[in-house]
Amino acid sequence: MSDKLKVGDRATLAKSFSTEEVNEFARLSLDNNPIHLDEEFAATSMFGQRIVHGMLVASLFSGLLGQNLPGIGGIYLGQKLSFKAPVMIDEEITASVEIINVRPDKPIITLKTVCTNRAGKTVIDGEAVVMIPR
Amino acid sequence: MSDKLKVGDRATLAKSFSTEEVNEFARLSLDNNPIHLDEEFAATSMFGQRIVHGMLVASLFSGLLGQNLPGIGGIYLGQKLSFKAPVMIDEEITASVEIINVRPDKPIITLKTVCTNRAGKTVIDGEAVVMIPR
Repeated sequence: MSDKLKVGDRATLAKSFSTEEVNEFARLSLDNNPIHLDEEFAATSMFGQRIVHGMLVASLFSGLLGQNLPGIGGIYLGQKLSFKAPVMIDEEITASVEIINVRPDKPIITLKTVCTNRAGKTVIDGEAVVMIPR
Repeated sequence: MSDKLKVGDRATLAKSFSTEEVNEFARLSLDNNPIHLDEEFAATSMFGQRIVHGMLVASLFSGLLGQNLPGIGGIYLGQKLSFKAPVMIDEEITASVEIINVRPDKPIITLKTVCTNRAGKTVIDGEAVVMIPR
């Protein structure tokens, strides 16, 4: 698999997160912060409304890495995340992963990972490191 | 809030993830990698069984940060994650966050974030950065 992978290879997907999905993620992760769940509380926050958990949005990278690039068989070694801007309920987000380094000595690649909103603003960026078993 | 926070402050929680929870997270994140969902496929993998999505396990940090330390009102700026070992279905994991730096110039703290299994092995480690609005 790794012989075909090269710097610049890229995969993307788009998704929004509904109120019900945010509620469900709160149950799964035990993250019941009212900024995500409580409309009245969130209305008084700096964001003015409920926002999607950053870790839920960032999970789109995991799917892209595991299913598209490098795809099934890759081992997720690491992820750096920088949360740049809030993601609102029902706001469509585009996640992309792009290979920025292929190690010559080991079957390990580094990918730039970015989520943007419809206005083109980066809401999350970072890097992933994935091992590709030979 | 930040005046009370100090290096060494710590919060922990424990949780396991069931088959149903892993399936649900796959739906939320669009991460349908068969290593998480398909028993037959997973049995042939290096792990020998279905494993929990690393990003789902790491989401325990988000809950601890947002609800316990520093708690409600904190703004999640960043998270570094290193996936060290697989987490199996129904395996109890303990997540902990511990303040390792409080910036003197800005209301920003850094926390060491670690998940361990019952054997005491680190399955995820990393660092979080959180802003505490004054």
